[in-house]
Amino acid sequence: MLQSLSIERTKTKKRQPAADQLGFGNYYTDHMFIMDYEAGRGWHSPRIIPYQPIVLDPAAKVFHYGQTIFEGLKAYKTEDGRVLLFRPRKNFERMNRSNERLSVPEVPVDDCIEAMKQLIAVDRDWIPTAPSTSLYVRPFIIATQPQLGVAPSTHYQFIVIMSPVGAYYSEGVNPVKIFVESEYVRSVKGGVGEAKTAGNYAAGLKAQELAKDKGYSQVLWLDGVHRKYIEEVGSMNVFFKINGTVHTPALNGSILDGVTRRSIIELLGHWNVPVVERPISIEELYEASRKGELEEAFGTGTAAVISPVGELNWQDDVLVINGGQTGELSKKLYDTLTGIQMGKLADPYDWMVEAVSAPVKA
Amino acid sequence: MLQSLSIERTKTKKRQPAADQLGFGNYYTDHMFIMDYEAGRGWHSPRIIPYQPIVLDPAAKVFHYGQTIFEGLKAYKTEDGRVLLFRPRKNFERMNRSNERLSVPEVPVDDCIEAMKQLIAVDRDWIPTAPSTSLYVRPFIIATQPQLGVAPSTHYQFIVIMSPVGAYYSEGVNPVKIFVESEYVRSVKGGVGEAKTAGNYAAGLKAQELAKDKGYSQVLWLDGVHRKYIEEVGSMNVFFKINGTVHTPALNGSILDGVTRRSIIELLGHWNVPVVERPISIEELYEASRKGELEEAFGTGTAAVISPVGELNWQDDVLVINGGQTGELSKKLYDTLTGIQMGKLADPYDWMVEAVSAPVKA
Repeated sequence: MLQSLSIERTKTKKRQPAADQLGFGNYYTDHMFIMDYEAGRGWHSPRIIPYQPIVLDPAAKVFHYGQTIFEGLKAYKTEDGRVLLFRPRKNFERMNRSNERLSVPEVPVDDCIEAMKQLIAVDRDWIPTAPSTSLYVRPFIIATQPQLGVAPSTHYQFIVIMSPVGAYYSEGVNPVKIFVESEYVRSVKGGVGEAKTAGNYAAGLKAQELAKDKGYSQVLWLDGVHRKYIEEVGSMNVFFKINGTVHTPALNGSILDGVTRRSIIELLGHWNVPVVERPISIEELYEASRKGELEEAFGTGTAAVISPVGELNWQDDVLVINGGQTGELSKKLYDTLTGIQMGKLADPYDWMVEAVSAPVKA
Repeated sequence: MLQSLSIERTKTKKRQPAADQLGFGNYYTDHMFIMDYEAGRGWHSPRIIPYQPIVLDPAAKVFHYGQTIFEGLKAYKTEDGRVLLFRPRKNFERMNRSNERLSVPEVPVDDCIEAMKQLIAVDRDWIPTAPSTSLYVRPFIIATQPQLGVAPSTHYQFIVIMSPVGAYYSEGVNPVKIFVESEYVRSVKGGVGEAKTAGNYAAGLKAQELAKDKGYSQVLWLDGVHRKYIEEVGSMNVFFKINGTVHTPALNGSILDGVTRRSIIELLGHWNVPVVERPISIEELYEASRKGELEEAFGTGTAAVISPVGELNWQDDVLVINGGQTGELSKKLYDTLTGIQMGKLADPYDWMVEAVSAPVKA
């Protein structure tokens, strides 16, 4: 399919923002990738074009019934000029699991990775190199059929846009304060919580706003059935180091199967740090803290990589973790993972994929 | 705000479809209404323009985080040439409840109704008059800020499009067969099930497809916590007549507060038919059927109005209701409600609002 990839380069390059002005998701590169899907024809017309608006019929299903999937991954420029991607296959494999759940057609994984590499190559000058910066890559699919019956769309667009980004949280790698949500629920078993689809994020906005008003960066979601088991933090999976063992909620259908989550579990395994995936109740966590056994907590995600959690608030019961400081293990995981991602450390697990090879020395 | 409403009429009118070709949501009228929102400025620039594509940055939040709300209501043309709307205030009041849940700014209810009336007046020739046809009006709001952080948008568009429609189900007012869903869940208390937002519909597509494959028109959703209490049917609320009393699931935060649902409850009250809003378990329903007490079942919604349910399938246990025929009460409710809506029956409850008054006789 990708043999027919066409590339149209922009005639008016945008001015690039300064590294300290980036923030997260505010600026977009000069180009985007797009391909179309039509029932009976499949994915077709792959093209790299100048970054430009999407033009859709107002009846397009994405506006009404939310049939949309996205992914997020980062590209890093190494000191020797190569561009590395972190486990991109995992993202497109997950996209296909999300697609399956939302009745969106499967995407060709190899073609998606290749298209993304070519797009990155075209906009390679956009990849920032300052500490904690990277090029955030956002592939997404939208349902475009202009039809108001509630049924899967016959037409879709797969699009990749890219944004040079700084740290996701203004705290950077400093610990964040998290509010444990008791009223609102993000997802429930049997729902779409495991899928990376727009509705999950819309459902979380209200609780997040209320938490922000109280001075917390994110919410920690509890399960929708018992309202006691820990699910995930805002846009991150979450880990707790209790008495030397690392615990993280087991995947249960309503928790996102994070690529960073998986990688952390694998990394801890390689280091012989015991790690357990299981249901974790919020009471248990508070109990462990009272016994002095809750040593560290951190969130994991593509946007934030590792984000230490310094404080939880559950029904006004404030729990300070590790004196509100970044824990030793959190720091080591952050340093190792970002080191591998930036190409500064060896990559013994073959996680990194070269999107652009090193330029030939002049 | 609406003092500044501008109207730009199309120069190329579309050809209108024949009444028997309509289906649901396939054709759109010549014009649309649109207004913009900007944080700090509020809703502004209301305008009626030729029906045309929406142009959005690919990073617009609606594509990624699903911050979008919609409503649906119908306009009917009476025999004397007036155009009637069914309880439009209820729709925009509900839109504001949905907005609140999804962190979308409130809309001005009176202005929305007035804008919709003016749009209907412009496209009044599009309102079909054949039996079971009407003009379906779809107001919706989309988040347009091009920003990838997970946070409420600073910019929105409120849009109204209109579609001449026939019956929602190919069965028309004949009974539909419904599959009781045991694996997938639509929503849960604490979630967004009560809001008319895109993600709820995306979450239901998979189960609906599987049910269709088995020969069922829709799914009946059970609650996400106990997996036993009846919530709603696909895009309808649901009622059961058991032993002379009408029962419908109580609003619990995960069920849509349907305008037709409310109207049916009121109508039954006026008729002195006992009606109870309460949790109803699926076991109880099957038990009532075994005892010969389940007399009728029907769904209610704007699109389908009243849709009799002739058969349920719960874990391969098939329950035929009223011999698979439309029940007497269902028929009476349908005739009364559509009679009032079409202006053929008196409107003792002041439900109908005139969008366009009768043309002056020549």
